[in-house]
Amino acid sequence: MFLHTSKLQFEAKPSKPDALYARKLQELIGGAYGEMTVTMQYLFQGWNCRIEGKYKDLIMDVATEEIGHVEMLATMVARLLEGAPSEVTAEAVADPVVAAVVGGMDVQQAIVSGGGPTLSDSNGVPWNGRFIVASGNLMADFRANVAAEAQGRLQTARLYNMTDDPGVRDMLKFNLARDTAHQNMWLAAIEELQEDGLEGPVSPSALFDEEHQEHAGTIWHNSDGTAGPEGRWASGPTPDGAHEFSYLMDPAPLGGKASAPAPDPLLYATSPANLGLIEKAIRKLT
Amino acid sequence: MFLHTSKLQFEAKPSKPDALYARKLQELIGGAYGEMTVTMQYLFQGWNCRIEGKYKDLIMDVATEEIGHVEMLATMVARLLEGAPSEVTAEAVADPVVAAVVGGMDVQQAIVSGGGPTLSDSNGVPWNGRFIVASGNLMADFRANVAAEAQGRLQTARLYNMTDDPGVRDMLKFNLARDTAHQNMWLAAIEELQEDGLEGPVSPSALFDEEHQEHAGTIWHNSDGTAGPEGRWASGPTPDGAHEFSYLMDPAPLGGKASAPAPDPLLYATSPANLGLIEKAIRKLT
Amino acid sequence: MFLHTSKLQFEAKPSKPDALYARKLQELIGGAYGEMTVTMQYLFQGWNCRIEGKYKDLIMDVATEEIGHVEMLATMVARLLEGAPSEVTAEAVADPVVAAVVGGMDVQQAIVSGGGPTLSDSNGVPWNGRFIVASGNLMADFRANVAAEAQGRLQTARLYNMTDDPGVRDMLKFNLARDTAHQNMWLAAIEELQEDGLEGPVSPSALFDEEHQEHAGTIWHNSDGTAGPEGRWASGPTPDGAHEFSYLMDPAPLGGKASAPAPDPLLYATSPANLGLIEKAIRKLT
Amino acid sequence: MFLHTSKLQFEAKPSKPDALYARKLQELIGGAYGEMTVTMQYLFQGWNCRIEGKYKDLIMDVATEEIGHVEMLATMVARLLEGAPSEVTAEAVADPVVAAVVGGMDVQQAIVSGGGPTLSDSNGVPWNGRFIVASGNLMADFRANVAAEAQGRLQTARLYNMTDDPGVRDMLKFNLARDTAHQNMWLAAIEELQEDGLEGPVSPSALFDEEHQEHAGTIWHNSDGTAGPEGRWASGPTPDGAHEFSYLMDPAPLGGKASAPAPDPLLYATSPANLGLIEKAIRKLT
Amino acid sequence: MFLHTSKLQFEAKPSKPDALYARKLQELIGGAYGEMTVTMQYLFQGWNCRIEGKYKDLIMDVATEEIGHVEMLATMVARLLEGAPSEVTAEAVADPVVAAVVGGMDVQQAIVSGGGPTLSDSNGVPWNGRFIVASGNLMADFRANVAAEAQGRLQTARLYNMTDDPGVRDMLKFNLARDTAHQNMWLAAIEELQEDGLEGPVSPSALFDEEHQEHAGTIWHNSDGTAGPEGRWASGPTPDGAHEFSYLMDPAPLGGKASAPAPDPLLYATSPANLGLIEKAIRKLT
Amino acid sequence: MFLHTSKLQFEAKPSKPDALYARKLQELIGGAYGEMTVTMQYLFQGWNCRIEGKYKDLIMDVATEEIGHVEMLATMVARLLEGAPSEVTAEAVADPVVAAVVGGMDVQQAIVSGGGPTLSDSNGVPWNGRFIVASGNLMADFRANVAAEAQGRLQTARLYNMTDDPGVRDMLKFNLARDTAHQNMWLAAIEELQEDGLEGPVSPSALFDEEHQEHAGTIWHNSDGTAGPEGRWASGPTPDGAHEFSYLMDPAPLGGKASAPAPDPLLYATSPANLGLIEKAIRKLT
Repeated sequence: MFLHTSKLQFEAKPSKPDALYARKLQELIGGAYGEMTVTMQYLFQGWNCRIEGKYKDLIMDVATEEIGHVEMLATMVARLLEGAPSEVTAEAVADPVVAAVVGGMDVQQAIVSGGGPTLSDSNGVPWNGRFIVASGNLMADFRANVAAEAQGRLQTARLYNMTDDPGVRDMLKFNLARDTAHQNMWLAAIEELQEDGLEGPVSPSALFDEEHQEHAGTIWHNSDGTAGPEGRWASGPTPDGAHEFSYLMDPAPLGGKASAPAPDPLLYATSPANLGLIEKAIRKLT
Repeated sequence: MFLHTSKLQFEAKPSKPDALYARKLQELIGGAYGEMTVTMQYLFQGWNCRIEGKYKDLIMDVATEEIGHVEMLATMVARLLEGAPSEVTAEAVADPVVAAVVGGMDVQQAIVSGGGPTLSDSNGVPWNGRFIVASGNLMADFRANVAAEAQGRLQTARLYNMTDDPGVRDMLKFNLARDTAHQNMWLAAIEELQEDGLEGPVSPSALFDEEHQEHAGTIWHNSDGTAGPEGRWASGPTPDGAHEFSYLMDPAPLGGKASAPAPDPLLYATSPANLGLIEKAIRKLT
Repeated sequence: MFLHTSKLQFEAKPSKPDALYARKLQELIGGAYGEMTVTMQYLFQGWNCRIEGKYKDLIMDVATEEIGHVEMLATMVARLLEGAPSEVTAEAVADPVVAAVVGGMDVQQAIVSGGGPTLSDSNGVPWNGRFIVASGNLMADFRANVAAEAQGRLQTARLYNMTDDPGVRDMLKFNLARDTAHQNMWLAAIEELQEDGLEGPVSPSALFDEEHQEHAGTIWHNSDGTAGPEGRWASGPTPDGAHEFSYLMDPAPLGGKASAPAPDPLLYATSPANLGLIEKAIRKLT
Repeated sequence: MFLHTSKLQFEAKPSKPDALYARKLQELIGGAYGEMTVTMQYLFQGWNCRIEGKYKDLIMDVATEEIGHVEMLATMVARLLEGAPSEVTAEAVADPVVAAVVGGMDVQQAIVSGGGPTLSDSNGVPWNGRFIVASGNLMADFRANVAAEAQGRLQTARLYNMTDDPGVRDMLKFNLARDTAHQNMWLAAIEELQEDGLEGPVSPSALFDEEHQEHAGTIWHNSDGTAGPEGRWASGPTPDGAHEFSYLMDPAPLGGKASAPAPDPLLYATSPANLGLIEKAIRKLT
Repeated sequence: MFLHTSKLQFEAKPSKPDALYARKLQELIGGAYGEMTVTMQYLFQGWNCRIEGKYKDLIMDVATEEIGHVEMLATMVARLLEGAPSEVTAEAVADPVVAAVVGGMDVQQAIVSGGGPTLSDSNGVPWNGRFIVASGNLMADFRANVAAEAQGRLQTARLYNMTDDPGVRDMLKFNLARDTAHQNMWLAAIEELQEDGLEGPVSPSALFDEEHQEHAGTIWHNSDGTAGPEGRWASGPTPDGAHEFSYLMDPAPLGGKASAPAPDPLLYATSPANLGLIEKAIRKLT
Repeated sequence: MFLHTSKLQFEAKPSKPDALYARKLQELIGGAYGEMTVTMQYLFQGWNCRIEGKYKDLIMDVATEEIGHVEMLATMVARLLEGAPSEVTAEAVADPVVAAVVGGMDVQQAIVSGGGPTLSDSNGVPWNGRFIVASGNLMADFRANVAAEAQGRLQTARLYNMTDDPGVRDMLKFNLARDTAHQNMWLAAIEELQEDGLEGPVSPSALFDEEHQEHAGTIWHNSDGTAGPEGRWASGPTPDGAHEFSYLMDPAPLGGKASAPAPDPLLYATSPANLGLIEKAIRKLT
């Protein structure tokens, strides 16, 4: 069960409204790597966690924090939209600065939300539940969590450079720091999973003995760049300590010809059995 | 530019048809972590790569291989659907095995594709372009690549246990091995990026000095589990070597009250200024 | 079966083209609360109506009218797009008014529709079938209909203030009036359902005696605002006349700890049973 | 900011696993009218509320409660999936009960979530942000809230009849009661908004004097059912007290012919100006 | 403006209920090539038509007919769902026929629509507005119309073989015939467009003299199948009479290396300029 | 299996950056009729082809070429975005040309892709797998292919007129030519299918004798335009040679009244059986 305080985790006060920027911030609310994604990803991971204790408790701590990040951003967006141009006159857009705003703002923030945020990204595409993953395998999921925090911090950094509003930047400095903390945290949790002997670096740490070992360390050279083999992925032991890397420079297909089976006549695929079809069809009618 | 050979990268021949399983394999074609995702994710990362040489060449090698994985799975699905029950009679479904198939198969594979795969996941939801990421930042993207391969191998392992068809299992043993190779490969590339001094473990490796340092190493205890602080994320240096972990056991909000600004009257939000509205509205009319 | 006359239900002639506004009007065509939604929502409700007579006949009357509203808006959009800037030159965008248009118009209206409307909202997101509901329960559906007409009229009112074109405003005055009529109509139909003894105010009017009565009138105070209990929802009889309101000021969870069951080993969730997993996995290989 | 306790708001323990039912419950998690929708709808309404006090505090109380409903359902689904058939053998599906389960379960709950819930509806379609509305106008939004709770209770009632598991039914009796409480609560809030003189029954309570009054009370008889005029929407004062109903029995279009303007030649619409186009095009080439 | 009669264009009465088939018929309602698609595609084409007369009048005739097809299918689905198993007991599913139904029916038809159709396809994915096209160019659009009717008739034929219910088959025989009529009709309209000199066979019939002529007739042999050049597309005049076919057997890329430009440092792409980044970042902090 | 060369099929070098145009080009990458669509449509058609030889080999040749078109466009977009304004200052947007760019560029190309393309259309909506069709019936699919190439060339032509950049135009001249070649090619393949006696012009060429012949050649006059019967679709033999056209000027419905069956009481549809429901419900409680 959840409780709420009406105070924000961190202040979210722009120095002045900026409707263009309010649109851009939507990416951090409803984008594929926005706060909504980490909120729901961590909540579902916590609820799906099959091992009680430190991992689950950590996940729920962070998940609950993230709902508050959506709240901060939603509040910031509403404040950035204060006084946004809802009445458009020719005189107004004769001012280039207004023209840029009129051209680039998210019109649904006005028409649908009445000057507030939507649950969409910066192009107005709604957030959706396929953005999250909660597989029950903590290693696989913590990899996804590091990835989400990395993309999230990257996008926050880009947005940081797209404004010079001190109030917005103050909040983003907090967001940047939280994304740093969370990247480090998931990286530490990945180490801990291995130290605890619960998961190996490759997910899942099973079926290694059944997979075709001869293909578990090769890189196939299917393009014509020449520098691929210069990396440490070209030879030597793999990070999981269980395989050896090698670079397959002149790869040849191992399988037979791609082909689909003879069709079911009731599904009307085109096949040699159709020969003379038109005549037959028309003959029947006449 | 691309070239194609009609031979498969690896054999994809089931020992016998299995329409139920053909539906499940759709997850590896068009699911959020299926082969279509890694194909397009790597292609767009390669095209968006801003540094020539080993990283870009590696990405394009693997991207091109992955198109062939979609091909293997598409071929396998068509073969698994051979002779799937397209005519349903009461007698047929009186056989429980047929009943399970009739109940559980993907009806669009028959109605829309005529006994072939669709570009959808195992629930029939279409693959979409928001499943991929290609940010231009290789560390952030390689994190996403490890995550994608980890989830992909996990799903493949689950699917491996859902069949005992030797032909299907033979192909999945190849897929498992490739997912192992690719996880190791991206992990190695992450190490190499750091050894080359191009990226740090936290993405992006910038703005550290501007982010609010006091919040870059704390875990907020927003839930009531007690074991969270037992992990290595509770104290000591962070994996990036730049911060210190600490666990904030009794977190208090740092910001003011969440509130939205006074509304623009032309957007008709409910506000104190509306007082007496109804009378006024009706008085006008009468 | 349907018939069509090429005359519009109401005139839809702008005084002059306005490509920026043509984009905004897309919200009334293909937005979640646009005319397409009420059209399809009412059609499916009519077809799904299980009681012959006045309710069903009313629904079909209004549903059929709404198709004509989509027609009016589609026509208006095409006319607003006349002469929209399809050739962009540096000289043209040196004029701020043109710059605003170039920045803010819906580019798909030009590229895809050749100067016509799309079946999308004002951010270009396509309309979809999940926007409608037709449950077979008239009370539940009429509630949704009032809600749709209320949001629709609100958006129309906002759009009314975003133009001063007399032709556009003339059509919107008709739309506003129809949204007024339809809100009143569904409100009247809700009253009539109750007067006819067919439905109560709460949907569905069943299972009241099975639901946990002690939880059917309480408001849980899960946030820290203090004014919630000042409203008429804090005490006294509920609008359905069947329960009593009360405000639960210090709510405590009634259930046990959220937890997921022990995992199926073949699904590879992380669990205590994984202990020593890595060593085992690697030992097998070597 | 939010806090979490790991105890559930109400118990969520099935008496025995039931994978088929676990799929159906997804509708209450990620369906258009599931708990995720009311959670995010109320949160965004609270954050977008432009009037401090009892309305906003109520919204945040209920919003925060709803997150806990998603938690209850997610927990229930994981428990219902315990031991679900992940290994399929011909012998197993020879049992009709198993066959029904194998046919009808949500395969992504196994393949993707490892025996846990997804953020999708009962057909596996992901939840998305267009399901919510937070317009800033409390009357329009409370209408949407009653509608959402009505559809939600209706679906819960249907699901209640689809199981006889005492544990599941116990939780659903709580859910039914909360949906009753919330419908009554929003209905009371709608009354209060009017008593407070903040909003009228029709949203928004503005522009009545500008809308075309002669069209604000008519029902257009565009279908051929004869019973429509028997309802109280056919005559007498409208619920908002501002208009009069009438039934337009033989409606005629008021507008001119629907037509699109002459096309921009650079957009290549087919038009009379194209005459002789082919000859010209080919003549140019030869 | 539209009018409606409550009589169906053709009878839609199944001989007996069949919930499994009710799910499959959803493909013809809300699938990418279902009746909803042709309805909205033709309506938007008609409204977007820039040439008055026979083409526009034909489009509106057919568009209006198609709304009635959605109505027939919606009615059929509701009737097929009569008495569908909403209460599931172990005894019931012990009957394999019931088991197949329980496994394979569309659960949203019960939970959401109360025994009626949804606006989704046979996998429950909602219909959406990107399924339609209305470009303003009649040749391009009539090509899409033939394609839609061809796929639609193909799916109807497949569904025809999936039932032996005389009532369902009677309706499908009508649908098959209408799809035949409409394919022929659009093919005739394509001929007429050319006879009228309005459009050539290739869309649009412009810019032929600007396109790179040497690439307007070649087929690139980018795969290794050997039979491609056996078709009439390998040599001789093209159908538009304006070009010559040839098969490019050993295709070589004509462009330079694919590469992205040097990155903007504020977007944090990985680039040679990042060298030594980590040290610098950490040095700043300490 | 696929191979890749890092050289582009054709050069993709703009003369200068143009961020506004980079957004528009997204339509050709990820739009419903963009290069991604034809790539995946042809790949899946090739893999689903049930007849070996010239048709399948042709499809795979073209499919493989199309991947390279996505590559050309992705490269072009990245180059057009070079130096796009990521830092926005009031001074910058005081320049109208910059204002237009700031207003109209795709902000996700910067925030998400770091100055590269996304897999979305020109409104930022992601590409999805429902855009493709691969039915197994070559005639139905080749119709869809002509349609896709026609819409694709039309959009390319429109985009050609929206730029005067010589480098962009040079690439588009290649694209226009390829779209011409491919339209002609699929038209030739349609002729060949008929000459080979494999398929008739109407898909599928079966069930003609079962469809209701009397409805296989009629056009229903459901709208009131008068010119519809002037076309060659009004009389004479149909293009498939198997039917006769006629225009049904005064169409009457052939079916009975649209109605849904009596509802299952456990689904709580409103029905006459509900009469007195409220009293009963409340009586139970008190």
